Amino acid sequence: MDASVENKRVLITQADHYMGPACVEIFEQEGADVVADTSDLSTESACRKLIDGAGVIDVLIANLAAPNHYGTLVTELEEPAWTEVFDLLVHPLHRLARFALPQMIERRKGKIVVFGSATPLRPMGRLAAYSAARGAQISYVKSVGVEVARHNVQVNLIAQNWVENPAYYPPKLQENPKFQNNLREQVPLGRLATPREDIALALFLASDKSDFFVGQAIPFAGGWAS
Amino acid sequence: MDASVENKRVLITQADHYMGPACVEIFEQEGADVVADTSDLSTESACRKLIDGAGVIDVLIANLAAPNHYGTLVTELEEPAWTEVFDLLVHPLHRLARFALPQMIERRKGKIVVFGSATPLRPMGRLAAYSAARGAQISYVKSVGVEVARHNVQVNLIAQNWVENPAYYPPKLQENPKFQNNLREQVPLGRLATPREDIALALFLASDKSDFFVGQAIPFAGGWAS
Amino acid sequence: MDASVENKRVLITQADHYMGPACVEIFEQEGADVVADTSDLSTESACRKLIDGAGVIDVLIANLAAPNHYGTLVTELEEPAWTEVFDLLVHPLHRLARFALPQMIERRKGKIVVFGSATPLRPMGRLAAYSAARGAQISYVKSVGVEVARHNVQVNLIAQNWVENPAYYPPKLQENPKFQNNLREQVPLGRLATPREDIALALFLASDKSDFFVGQAIPFAGGWAS
Amino acid sequence: MDASVENKRVLITQADHYMGPACVEIFEQEGADVVADTSDLSTESACRKLIDGAGVIDVLIANLAAPNHYGTLVTELEEPAWTEVFDLLVHPLHRLARFALPQMIERRKGKIVVFGSATPLRPMGRLAAYSAARGAQISYVKSVGVEVARHNVQVNLIAQNWVENPAYYPPKLQENPKFQNNLREQVPLGRLATPREDIALALFLASDKSDFFVGQAIPFAGGWAS
Repeated sequence: MDASVENKRVLITQADHYMGPACVEIFEQEGADVVADTSDLSTESACRKLIDGAGVIDVLIANLAAPNHYGTLVTELEEPAWTEVFDLLVHPLHRLARFALPQMIERRKGKIVVFGSATPLRPMGRLAAYSAARGAQISYVKSVGVEVARHNVQVNLIAQNWVENPAYYPPKLQENPKFQNNLREQVPLGRLATPREDIALALFLASDKSDFFVGQAIPFAGGWAS
Repeated sequence: MDASVENKRVLITQADHYMGPACVEIFEQEGADVVADTSDLSTESACRKLIDGAGVIDVLIANLAAPNHYGTLVTELEEPAWTEVFDLLVHPLHRLARFALPQMIERRKGKIVVFGSATPLRPMGRLAAYSAARGAQISYVKSVGVEVARHNVQVNLIAQNWVENPAYYPPKLQENPKFQNNLREQVPLGRLATPREDIALALFLASDKSDFFVGQAIPFAGGWAS
Repeated sequence: MDASVENKRVLITQADHYMGPACVEIFEQEGADVVADTSDLSTESACRKLIDGAGVIDVLIANLAAPNHYGTLVTELEEPAWTEVFDLLVHPLHRLARFALPQMIERRKGKIVVFGSATPLRPMGRLAAYSAARGAQISYVKSVGVEVARHNVQVNLIAQNWVENPAYYPPKLQENPKFQNNLREQVPLGRLATPREDIALALFLASDKSDFFVGQAIPFAGGWAS
Repeated sequence: MDASVENKRVLITQADHYMGPACVEIFEQEGADVVADTSDLSTESACRKLIDGAGVIDVLIANLAAPNHYGTLVTELEEPAWTEVFDLLVHPLHRLARFALPQMIERRKGKIVVFGSATPLRPMGRLAAYSAARGAQISYVKSVGVEVARHNVQVNLIAQNWVENPAYYPPKLQENPKFQNNLREQVPLGRLATPREDIALALFLASDKSDFFVGQAIPFAGGWAS
């Protein structure tokens, strides 16, 4: 067992969604004391209540997903769909960070790891809302990471794409020959990442080994973006 | 006179704010037919009305400013301040683009130029909301730029900092010796850009000369970020 | 006529190659006093002699091309081919800059514009030497640009790809249906840039209008890279 | 013990220099079978001989250092100093990769990890040769990484700065109050990385856990660059 998150108290949001299930399973295997949260993050008071009730948080895993509306033309991207993406990806991130950081700053120790996206690093059309919101996450992490580093608290983001997960790559899509062809052409490594590979990076960023990583968005995309 | 925007119909938003006044003045000097708008952009219907009432728009200058709350700690950045920045910088950008693009796509000709910020390119602490929102603008422009390029419509952003303007560099700040010292240390060129220099780039991006620029965030910061 | 380079003395290297012919023609049309050089740049003394003999240089256009060996596997890229790319693209750039900068620094005015490549911005396989050398140019320009900005001398680079020129896109290649298909799929704008569009950016960077651009590598690739 | 490099055969170049000593020590602690090389890398034949004589190489650690000539003005950077930096940092990297890759490609398994620099990511003046050469390394790794990924071989680079090592941060410099002040102002984390923290990243990139990292230059600089 890699001792690096052993006995650390790790809060994982949206534990039943996106990278949540794999993250809970593997962090527990590694000996972390996992708080697998599935509560609503859509209001300031809900987030405050979640953090206040969670006790010590050594590591916050901000696992946030949203419909990406891939394929919708920008001219047909209506206000509710647009707004929803920010409501799910961006605003909860600030609420969670804002309420979790004070205890980390006080202890001069803590990590926030965000499961983000590589799409802002290699722009795609028909993905305007999702790109903008994932880009907001990256810029947020960079600014906040630089700000809180002097308290020995580290905030980083995994800028991933082509990682196996039920939210974006359901089995049916994976079996589609057109998708498989696309994967081979677009991703130099030629395959999806397993959840375990993705969580290995999250473990590294959650551990004491990565203290020198500050406000970074680390591409994790099999060479699709770097 | 540089003929490049002569007789082009140019809609400039928030014409009385940020880069608006300089932009209106110089685009008019260059022969553009300027629509200097100062209307409210806070709702979908207001933006739709503005664009529908503006007639032909050859060039949309998305000039959007917001309080940057510089100096506020991320842990003290409250919900209303956070939300306001997105309401002023991000959501109106989508509304304006969404409603202005169809006529440009139909004519197979048009430009959107966004006055954005370089802060996402060189992260600063105590600037979380502003960084995130300006980062969202950049990622939005990259995605939409790539999407609409095949219609010969170009969307680009000026990622600026250290440009003289009343919103962020009022005369009082400029006279402050500490600010002057900071300027010399942080900006390799050692001075603020004049509004005219900034608008020269906007003119270039608004003209037919820049058709090959697609979905770019062009740093404009005297070497502070590149 | 755009007065921005009128009467400026502009040294263009390798005037018979790559962007040279178009650059000479268009800068002359714009009223520049062009020195169209075709001399050898392969030694320190040759470069020193060229610059010493050129008199006043308001603008240095570092137009340098090399075989890109595209398609050669990295494991088959032999020492002479590897070395040649650096000898043609990288070492002459330093020699030219080193000898031309003192007179610019002394006058507190001058520009260096490099015709570089976008390939380092969107990595491609089977292009190792060329990518490395073009990447060296970009990093060189960024460092030198930041260094000399305080003397009001600006050094910038056009990170181009998909620009029509006889060195990389001979007519035969352009007529190839496979190439045309590739162009439509890879380049959001769906076409090559004309030399005139490329030179328009060079003119902008050579003019007094772009003093606030410092040490930048500006993507110019129709949306292929940004 | 972290099993991730256990029993892997790891060739570390310049084992007595830069990150070499710490790298040898820690990889051995982790159970790797280390070949600590100190041979000359200045010719093609020497590099070929080294690789041919090394037997199986699961992981190649390209540890290459050079004088950075920091402080030398670009106008005073003479040919021999310029050339030497490329001779030490860039050309050996290609030779090592070119000769080591075939066996990795044949086994469909292998890693190259380069100790590179973050300086190209945040441009500094008076550092032209070093910046250009370290930038060449980054672009090389990106291109080669993308090329060989389909063979399940991964090539990545640690873009580091502010990491304790005798080559760039001798004890005397570290004791200098001006340096300490500079460190606090420039590096958000406020301290140098220990060699162990740096090697932790190298271990991760050398292990099977990081197969999805392809052609990346990972900033490692305490927030100084990201």
